[in-house]
Amino acid sequence: MSEVARTVRAGGRGARRALRAAPDFEMLPALKRGIPECEVMDQGRVEQIDNASMSILEEIGVIFRDEIAIADWKRAGAKVDGDRVYLDRGLVRELISTIPSGWTYRARNQERSLPFGGKHSIFVPMTGAPFIRDLDDVRRWPTIADLNMFHKLSHMSPALHSTAHHIVEPMDMKVSHRHLHITYSSMKHSDKTFMGMTTSGKNAEDVMAMCEILFGADVMEETPVTTGNCNGNSPLVWDETMLSAMRAFVKRKQPVLCSPFVLGGANTPASVAPAVAQLNAEALSALAYTQVIRKGAPAIYGHYLSTVSMKSGAPMAGTPEISLMNFMIGQMARYYNVPWRTSNNLGGAKTFDAQAGYESAMTMNAVLHAGANYIWHSAGWNEAGMHCSTAKFVVDAEMCQMGYRMAEGPRWDDFDEAMQAVRDVGPGGHYLGHPHTLENFERAFFMPKLFDNNSIEQWQAEGSVEITQRALDRAKQLLADYEEPKLDEGVNEALLDYIARREREIPAVDELNTEH
Amino acid sequence: MSEVARTVRAGGRGARRALRAAPDFEMLPALKRGIPECEVMDQGRVEQIDNASMSILEEIGVIFRDEIAIADWKRAGAKVDGDRVYLDRGLVRELISTIPSGWTYRARNQERSLPFGGKHSIFVPMTGAPFIRDLDDVRRWPTIADLNMFHKLSHMSPALHSTAHHIVEPMDMKVSHRHLHITYSSMKHSDKTFMGMTTSGKNAEDVMAMCEILFGADVMEETPVTTGNCNGNSPLVWDETMLSAMRAFVKRKQPVLCSPFVLGGANTPASVAPAVAQLNAEALSALAYTQVIRKGAPAIYGHYLSTVSMKSGAPMAGTPEISLMNFMIGQMARYYNVPWRTSNNLGGAKTFDAQAGYESAMTMNAVLHAGANYIWHSAGWNEAGMHCSTAKFVVDAEMCQMGYRMAEGPRWDDFDEAMQAVRDVGPGGHYLGHPHTLENFERAFFMPKLFDNNSIEQWQAEGSVEITQRALDRAKQLLADYEEPKLDEGVNEALLDYIARREREIPAVDELNTEH
Repeated sequence: MSEVARTVRAGGRGARRALRAAPDFEMLPALKRGIPECEVMDQGRVEQIDNASMSILEEIGVIFRDEIAIADWKRAGAKVDGDRVYLDRGLVRELISTIPSGWTYRARNQERSLPFGGKHSIFVPMTGAPFIRDLDDVRRWPTIADLNMFHKLSHMSPALHSTAHHIVEPMDMKVSHRHLHITYSSMKHSDKTFMGMTTSGKNAEDVMAMCEILFGADVMEETPVTTGNCNGNSPLVWDETMLSAMRAFVKRKQPVLCSPFVLGGANTPASVAPAVAQLNAEALSALAYTQVIRKGAPAIYGHYLSTVSMKSGAPMAGTPEISLMNFMIGQMARYYNVPWRTSNNLGGAKTFDAQAGYESAMTMNAVLHAGANYIWHSAGWNEAGMHCSTAKFVVDAEMCQMGYRMAEGPRWDDFDEAMQAVRDVGPGGHYLGHPHTLENFERAFFMPKLFDNNSIEQWQAEGSVEITQRALDRAKQLLADYEEPKLDEGVNEALLDYIARREREIPAVDELNTEH
Repeated sequence: MSEVARTVRAGGRGARRALRAAPDFEMLPALKRGIPECEVMDQGRVEQIDNASMSILEEIGVIFRDEIAIADWKRAGAKVDGDRVYLDRGLVRELISTIPSGWTYRARNQERSLPFGGKHSIFVPMTGAPFIRDLDDVRRWPTIADLNMFHKLSHMSPALHSTAHHIVEPMDMKVSHRHLHITYSSMKHSDKTFMGMTTSGKNAEDVMAMCEILFGADVMEETPVTTGNCNGNSPLVWDETMLSAMRAFVKRKQPVLCSPFVLGGANTPASVAPAVAQLNAEALSALAYTQVIRKGAPAIYGHYLSTVSMKSGAPMAGTPEISLMNFMIGQMARYYNVPWRTSNNLGGAKTFDAQAGYESAMTMNAVLHAGANYIWHSAGWNEAGMHCSTAKFVVDAEMCQMGYRMAEGPRWDDFDEAMQAVRDVGPGGHYLGHPHTLENFERAFFMPKLFDNNSIEQWQAEGSVEITQRALDRAKQLLADYEEPKLDEGVNEALLDYIARREREIPAVDELNTEH
C-alpha cells in the first residue's frame, strides 16, 4: 500500500489532507462496492435460467473443436459424440463448485495487488483495437510506441487498476512475435496488474514463461499474477485456439475468462432472457472445463455482449437490453459463486461525440449496478471496438473515477460534524466559508477535470476548447509527468533474453498468426 | 388508451405486429418500473436521516417569508417566532400522513392520462431555459414560436409523457403576460399532460382558471390535471412568491412539487448524507404546509440538485454524488410514502458534445435506479440549464425510450418459444433467419435511430453526418409530420377570450415580473 493509501485508510483529518496533497495520478485502493446489486430476477427466475442452461448442456450439448478437450471430457465422464459434448447438470455443478469465489490478483508492485471477486470491482482499459485515434485525433494503424503510450496512461489513471495487454494492436510488430512485445510493454511501463495474451496455446505458454521470470513459478502457484481471455463462438462452440490457451493458463493456476461472444439476435435468440440462458450455458461449459484441466484453479465467468443492428448487422452499445443482460448475468455468476467479467464505456460512434458519451455512461452505470468484478474496455473504446481513442481514453478514465465514487456509496463519518454546520449556518445562510466545508469540500464532491463547468462567457474567453482537445492536452501532460516504475535489472535482462530467443525460434509471420 | 396501446396490452402476435406498424411517435403507455430501486441505506440509516431532519425542523426551524403562511402555521399549532417556524416531528408526521401516495394525472386526451406515484415514472422535458440552440444549432433568445416547436416535439416523442410548460422562455412575450401564452401553448399543441406556471400567486390563479376552462372545476376536484413547481431557497427558507403560487394550486387539489434548490456545498453541508438530511427537512416543511392549506391535497416531494464547482461556483451535472443523493432521496420519499420528483439528462456542456452525453446518461441511470416518479428536464437541458438544445432534445427523447425499456425489466413471455429456437439452431448456427427472430427482433432489441452504428466506411460514404445534424434532421422531420390534436372549438375560444381579458387587466411589464 502506498504512503497515501495507508494514511487514508487510517482515517481522520490528517488522512484527508494527505489525500488532497497526493499526486492526482496515484492509484486508488481496490474498489469495494457499497451500493446494492440491481437484481431484476427473483430466485424463481434465476432457477429458470439455470434450468434452461442445464437443459441446453444436457440435451443440445456443446461443441469442443479440440482433440485434447474431447479426450479430457471422456475421462471426466461426459457423454461425447464426435466433437459434441453433453454435460449432465450434476457433473457441471460438481466441477464448478471447486472454482474459488475470490483471490488476490498479484501486481508487480505488491502494494498494487488487488482483491478479486465478491464486492470488489476492477477497471481495465480497452483491449484489441486495430486502429488508434492518436494524440492529434488522427485515425490510423497503431504501433508498439502507441501501445507503450496507453500502458503509460493506464499507469497514470487512478481508477484503472490494470494496464491490460494489447490495448491497441502494435501493427509494426510481426504477428508471430507480437505477443512477446505486448507482454513486455505491460510489464515494463506499469507495476499495476496486467493481462496475458491468449492468441494461441504457444503464445500463452510464452506469456506464462515471462510471468515466471517476473514473479517466479512459486508465486504463481500461490496466487494469480495475470488473467487470460478465452472467447467462445456462440452459439455453443469452443475452438482449439482458445482451449489450448486456456490450458496453458489453467495448468499454472492463472485464471481465464470464459467469455461467450454474444451478438444478441445474431448468435442468440432475439430475446433478453433466452439469450442469457444460452450465454450462461456456454460460460458454464467452459468454467466446468477449467476444473477438468486443474481442479481448484481460479476461473472467471466472462462474456462480451452487444445487440446487433438488424439493418447493418453492426454491434450496438449502450442499449437497454445490454444493461438488462448485465444485471442478469451478474445474478447468475453470484448464484454459482464465481467472479465475473463484463465490458464498460463502450461506444459505437465514429468520433468522440455525444453518442460516444451517452453509450459509454449507459454501459458504465449498467455494469456497476450489475456488480461486475472485472470490468474490461473501461477506457478508449469507440467505433464498436475498431479504434482506441486517446481523447476518450483519458475521459473514460476520469469517468471510472466517478463510477468508483458512486459505487462506493455514501460516507457517514462526518455526519454529526456536518449537522453542526447546519446549526451554525442556519436558514438563509451559506456554507462556502464554514470550516466543515473548507475541510471536506474536495473529498465530498467529485470535480471532473475534463468536463467544463464554466459559464459560456468564460469558456469562450478561454478559446472555446472542445472536450477532445481538452482531453488530448491532458494526455500530453500525463505523459510528460510519467515516471517509469523500473523493473529489477536482472529481471529486465532475463525478459529481453527470453524475447530474443523466442524471436529466433518462432518463424516471423507478418500475416495473422495461425499457430495453435 | 389508443388503439395500438389497447391491442398491445391485449398481447400476442397480432399485438406485436400492431406495435411494429404503429407510427413511431405514438405515446408509450405509462412506464411501470420492473427493476428494483437502488437502496444505499439500510433502515437504520433512513431513520438517521429522518431523525436529523426532524431535529432541524424542531430546533433550527424554517423561515416562511410570507404573512399568510405564518398565520396558517400559528393556527396549525406550530411554534412561530417572527418568520421562523419550529415544527414538532409529531405535527410533521401527522400532516404529511394525509398526502396521497398516488393518483391519476389527467390529460386532455383521457387515453393519455397517467398513473402517478409508486412504481410509475413520467418523463417531462426540460423547463425554464433562457436560451435556445435552434434548428440551425444557433444559440439565441427563444420566442413563443420556439416554445410551440418544443411542445410539438414533446407531443411527438413516445417516451415523453408531458409537454411541461416553459421549456424555453418566450422572450418576445411581455413578462407579465407570458404565463398565459405558455399555458395556452401547452394546452393547444399536445393532448398529453402538462405543467402550470408558478411564477407568482396571481399567475398561478390564471393557470388554474385556464385549467378550469379546459377540464372543468369538477374534474379538478376529482383528480389533478396539472402540477406546479415551488422552489425553496436552501438552506431552510420558503418565500412568498412560491408559497402564494402553492396556495393557488393546493386549494384546488392540484399537486405542487416542494423542491429545495440544492447547490451541494454552497447551500448545504459539503457532504452527501448531511446534504440529504437538510434537503429532506426542507421538503418535509413544505409538504407539511400543503396539508395545512388543504388536508388530503396531493403533493410531490421535489428537489433540484447539483454539486457546485469549488473553482467557478458553477453547478455540475452527472457527478457521482448527484447519483448517490438521488438514491437516498428516493428512499426518504418512499419512507414517507409520498411521490417524488427529480431531474434527468442534465448537462453542463456548452455544445452538444461528448461531455453532454456522459453527463446526461449518468443522470438518467441514477434517477431510474433511484425509482423517481416524476422525472423533469428529461430532454434538451445543456449548459447547466442556460439553453435548451433542439438537437439534444430529440436525442434525449430517444434516450428516454431506452431508459423506459431498461426500467421495465426483462420480458419472459416468449421464453419457451425462444428456447425452442436454441434447439432448432444448435451449436455453430445462427439465428438471423429463424422465425422466432423475425417475429421478435424489433421488440427484443431497441434500435436507436439517432446513434449511428454503421461501419466507418459506410458512415463516411453517407457524408460523415455528425449526431447534431442527424438530430436536427430528425427534429425537422418530426415537425413536418406533426398533426395538431385540435382543441374543442368552444374551449379554444374561451381560452383565447380569457387570455385577451387578462392581457387587458394585467399591466404590461417587460421586465421581470414582481407581482405576487
